[in-house]
Amino acid sequence: MSDHETKPAETIARAAKAAFEASQLVPASERVIALQEIRKELEASKDAILLANNKDLEAAQAEVDAGRMSASLLKRLDLGKADKWDSMLQGVSDVAALPDPTGNVTYASELDDNLDLYRVSCPIGVLLVIFESRPEVVVNIAALAIKSGNAAILKGGKESNQTALLLSKAIQTGLSRTSLPDTYIQTIQTRAEVSSLLELDQYIDLVIPRGSNSLVRNIQNNTRIPVMGHADGLCSIFLDETANVEKAVRIVVDSKTDYPAACNAVETLIVHESLLNTVWPVVAKALLAADIQLLCDPPTLSVLHSLSPPPQNLSNIVHPSTPESYSTEHLSLTLSVISLPSLQSAIQFINSHSSHHTDAIVTESQASASTFCRGVDSSGTFVNASTRFADGFRYGFGTEVGISTGRIHARGPVGLEGLVIYKYMLRSKGDKGHIVGEFGVGEGKKQYKHQKIDTDHVPF
Amino acid sequence: MSDHETKPAETIARAAKAAFEASQLVPASERVIALQEIRKELEASKDAILLANNKDLEAAQAEVDAGRMSASLLKRLDLGKADKWDSMLQGVSDVAALPDPTGNVTYASELDDNLDLYRVSCPIGVLLVIFESRPEVVVNIAALAIKSGNAAILKGGKESNQTALLLSKAIQTGLSRTSLPDTYIQTIQTRAEVSSLLELDQYIDLVIPRGSNSLVRNIQNNTRIPVMGHADGLCSIFLDETANVEKAVRIVVDSKTDYPAACNAVETLIVHESLLNTVWPVVAKALLAADIQLLCDPPTLSVLHSLSPPPQNLSNIVHPSTPESYSTEHLSLTLSVISLPSLQSAIQFINSHSSHHTDAIVTESQASASTFCRGVDSSGTFVNASTRFADGFRYGFGTEVGISTGRIHARGPVGLEGLVIYKYMLRSKGDKGHIVGEFGVGEGKKQYKHQKIDTDHVPF
Repeated sequence: MSDHETKPAETIARAAKAAFEASQLVPASERVIALQEIRKELEASKDAILLANNKDLEAAQAEVDAGRMSASLLKRLDLGKADKWDSMLQGVSDVAALPDPTGNVTYASELDDNLDLYRVSCPIGVLLVIFESRPEVVVNIAALAIKSGNAAILKGGKESNQTALLLSKAIQTGLSRTSLPDTYIQTIQTRAEVSSLLELDQYIDLVIPRGSNSLVRNIQNNTRIPVMGHADGLCSIFLDETANVEKAVRIVVDSKTDYPAACNAVETLIVHESLLNTVWPVVAKALLAADIQLLCDPPTLSVLHSLSPPPQNLSNIVHPSTPESYSTEHLSLTLSVISLPSLQSAIQFINSHSSHHTDAIVTESQASASTFCRGVDSSGTFVNASTRFADGFRYGFGTEVGISTGRIHARGPVGLEGLVIYKYMLRSKGDKGHIVGEFGVGEGKKQYKHQKIDTDHVPF
Repeated sequence: MSDHETKPAETIARAAKAAFEASQLVPASERVIALQEIRKELEASKDAILLANNKDLEAAQAEVDAGRMSASLLKRLDLGKADKWDSMLQGVSDVAALPDPTGNVTYASELDDNLDLYRVSCPIGVLLVIFESRPEVVVNIAALAIKSGNAAILKGGKESNQTALLLSKAIQTGLSRTSLPDTYIQTIQTRAEVSSLLELDQYIDLVIPRGSNSLVRNIQNNTRIPVMGHADGLCSIFLDETANVEKAVRIVVDSKTDYPAACNAVETLIVHESLLNTVWPVVAKALLAADIQLLCDPPTLSVLHSLSPPPQNLSNIVHPSTPESYSTEHLSLTLSVISLPSLQSAIQFINSHSSHHTDAIVTESQASASTFCRGVDSSGTFVNASTRFADGFRYGFGTEVGISTGRIHARGPVGLEGLVIYKYMLRSKGDKGHIVGEFGVGEGKKQYKHQKIDTDHVPF
């Protein structure tokens, strides 16, 4: 990038930490003002940003023409398309309007007369967020970081560098009109910078990679910093013995076709053996009618071949599955199908094959539903509902940082709560302060009270 | 270990994951029964365990005699000493009696008529816990893991291998009398096993190292698995401009002397410059009277040299500090001292020198207290209270997994809550199940309700 002055990674990281620390003494209301100023600056810079976006699009078109980039990736770069620009701005205002996730007391206890303990939600610190292609993600993530009080260093896809550069300038200009440091949000543009930053665990507190499994794994392999991965989803649906056929059809078709490229689309269908000649043929016909390619195990395949009349496109669209079929995230109109003899075997199959993202059961049995939800070790376990419901907006979080495939800190769809942690504040109001030596067993020693304090904010 | 059959690490890890998955269908009450059975089995095996402990002690004595082990480490190995055995057993019963940290609903929302979302606390999965020397930690950690529903693989210090082997046999015998798998808790004995296990992120979900900074760092460098580190504490106390002298003396002396080897003992004292000739000499005399060695910067040192009459042991016990003094965890009766010109500079000094564990201010100013607690980026920020209060039992958690020096998932003293995460359960009670395609903008489309459900448990 000719017009992007490259700073050493350590300078960037140290500035981010300093910005975070300074921001801790700035009231949370200033962060809302910052989001409003950023929105204003984006509006004022719209023409220049879309011009830069056109340059990115032209460069990408050349890549597509040369067969080095997919047309679908190109489409995702376009910031001028339909209501994308307005949605991006509205997203900033929406995040600004969400409740402040920091400063909330989640545990408060009187340890002794005049000795009060408060557990208070607070930002994590400095985030390093790595994502792919879509340039508006720079603005989304910046808004989430600012709202939650974290400093952030952002790295987008190189295809959107020109656009991201101007978006990030607008963000910094917006910040510069507030009392927050303008290094609160910084962007970087090269993989080499990412590699250097991954070494700097003294400055960076959390890495959030949003992309492929290999991106997440590569980062986990190369840093001591905690990683909150947002990777693939290999979701499955189990049709239980008692599955209602209408529910089965609706849920499987919706889970596969509503948005096949999403991580919460279904990839594997598990059919209880007892349904092979009842529910399965009906579901299969609906799937075939929706042009879904099926990769079937022998029992489900043989049922399809014995149907009368045979489905028209059977030989083109139905194929035998291989063991790999059940560990593949198709992200397309392809579905792997297997039959299993019991709820128990389905749970075991899911636990060993799914990516622990979201798995659903179709059942009329409350007992099966309960067993499935407890036994399946995934971030979402659904009963008679499409896997596509696994989403921060649908869950009611107002926004989504991503969908965490880890099981530490935040799991599943992550809202602003996933970007905060807590600290403990302890205050003595006693005449002589409080010391530990006065507590214990024996004469004259004090005992801890541990009396719950009913409050949602820190009184000092 | 001659009588310890070594299994390949992958066999151990796979068995742990299978045990965890199987346990998810066992009611939580069975985990309480398991703890009771383990206590009974420990009681029944007391003689054999203490005999094994004697063998460990004899081997350790030889190491001490040869100058290869410290006498203090030897002492920590002794399970027969004072009330250690009874405390260990009582700990198992105490953990059994704590409220179940799993199965609690922390967020519930009606997304649509008959479509209910529940966020439910649940175990993390398989824990790998690595700790040092004290053999009773095997039992403590096993109790915490079982109570929170996690499977665990435990590695203690090699000095206590004989004892740990019998303790773990008792744990497995206790488990075998329940419907939980006896591979729910497994112990390993070699570093080579640890190295192999750190590769197996498909089976192990969280590594908890409890020990030195170098242990924690070494593990972070060698695994993709998330690490919840329990490492050093470099705690500080700031005597603010308005510090009350009596509180200052009591809090600094208690923080340093109550248990100098603990991670929550104070290591650095920061004196506001305006107190150099008022509060500081009084605090210094109290510290010298308690035989605390002081490493002082020039201003605090010069005050001590000009005292009249000079303190008796001044030249032996007071020395000039070096830059390293302020990044050293002394863990002994040594305290580094520095004077700074302002609250702001003290906050900056703490943020760049402390280990973000626990830091305290002594002040009579509510404004300073508030600024300090917000500005200091540590897991504990205390006002007029000893740093030694940073402890899970003192905080009222009933138990302590350790004190996390990370800021993801759990921070500061960690109770059972630190060993759980959550999953989302979504249930449709609708006649046709629920699909995403019915929601959205446009005619006939449904809108999400997002109506809070007031419940603390899942009704299915």
